[in-house]
Amino acid sequence: MTEPRQFRLLYVEDSPADTEFVRLAFKRVASDTQLDVVDSGEKALALLRSPKPLPDMVLLDLKMPGMDGHEVLTAIKSDPRLHAVPVIILTSSRLEEDIARAYQVGANCYLPKPDDALGYQATATEVHKFWMRTALLPKGA
Amino acid sequence: MTEPRQFRLLYVEDSPADTEFVRLAFKRVASDTQLDVVDSGEKALALLRSPKPLPDMVLLDLKMPGMDGHEVLTAIKSDPRLHAVPVIILTSSRLEEDIARAYQVGANCYLPKPDDALGYQATATEVHKFWMRTALLPKGA
Repeated sequence: MTEPRQFRLLYVEDSPADTEFVRLAFKRVASDTQLDVVDSGEKALALLRSPKPLPDMVLLDLKMPGMDGHEVLTAIKSDPRLHAVPVIILTSSRLEEDIARAYQVGANCYLPKPDDALGYQATATEVHKFWMRTALLPKGA
Repeated sequence: MTEPRQFRLLYVEDSPADTEFVRLAFKRVASDTQLDVVDSGEKALALLRSPKPLPDMVLLDLKMPGMDGHEVLTAIKSDPRLHAVPVIILTSSRLEEDIARAYQVGANCYLPKPDDALGYQATATEVHKFWMRTALLPKGA
């Protein structure tokens, strides 16, 4: 038997309330997942570009002051060292233009922010079951 | 109430046995999903480049005679009209180099082929729940 794999998710989110929802949801449904949180796009890129190991996935808000999610996504997907890291957009926007733009720039998928704690738990469950139990992820660099 | 949305999935697969597994699995767990099948990369690209409406997603085998899945993926992701269409790789290869290459070229996710009908049903269930019930997809062109 091999050790159960641990996953590392980098969550980029400026809202402390949403951060808390996501933290609690993953803690409840995905005990094999370590969630690291940064509250700005600038901090996310600084972390991703540091010599530290890359996360298995990035969970990325779109609307943030300063560098927004579209800009962070563009920077990740145009950086040869970073662009294979799967990026999940998690945003309150359901605008077709935001969805289209995210997929065009290379978002791996696009999720709407749920309305309440139960909704976050359902989303975390689906993310965990699909990405960490069904899909195969690239090996972090 | 709006009409429940219908999804169109283009499955690119040369193996009749695997095609039948996937067809049965989606029929059983995803009645809102229409599965169109082509048996080569060349036919997939001809269809995608035709004036017909684009599928909501592409499910793509890697190992195929003629144009293989990596080549089809590269062609899709470098075509401005096609590159926002989500592509799910579905392959028997679990080689790290195949996984890394697929994500690098822009695969939205990478799934290992299951071993039997029950496994295909489980995978179809997760694909359906995540991509068609949880995620938001770009509007087809």
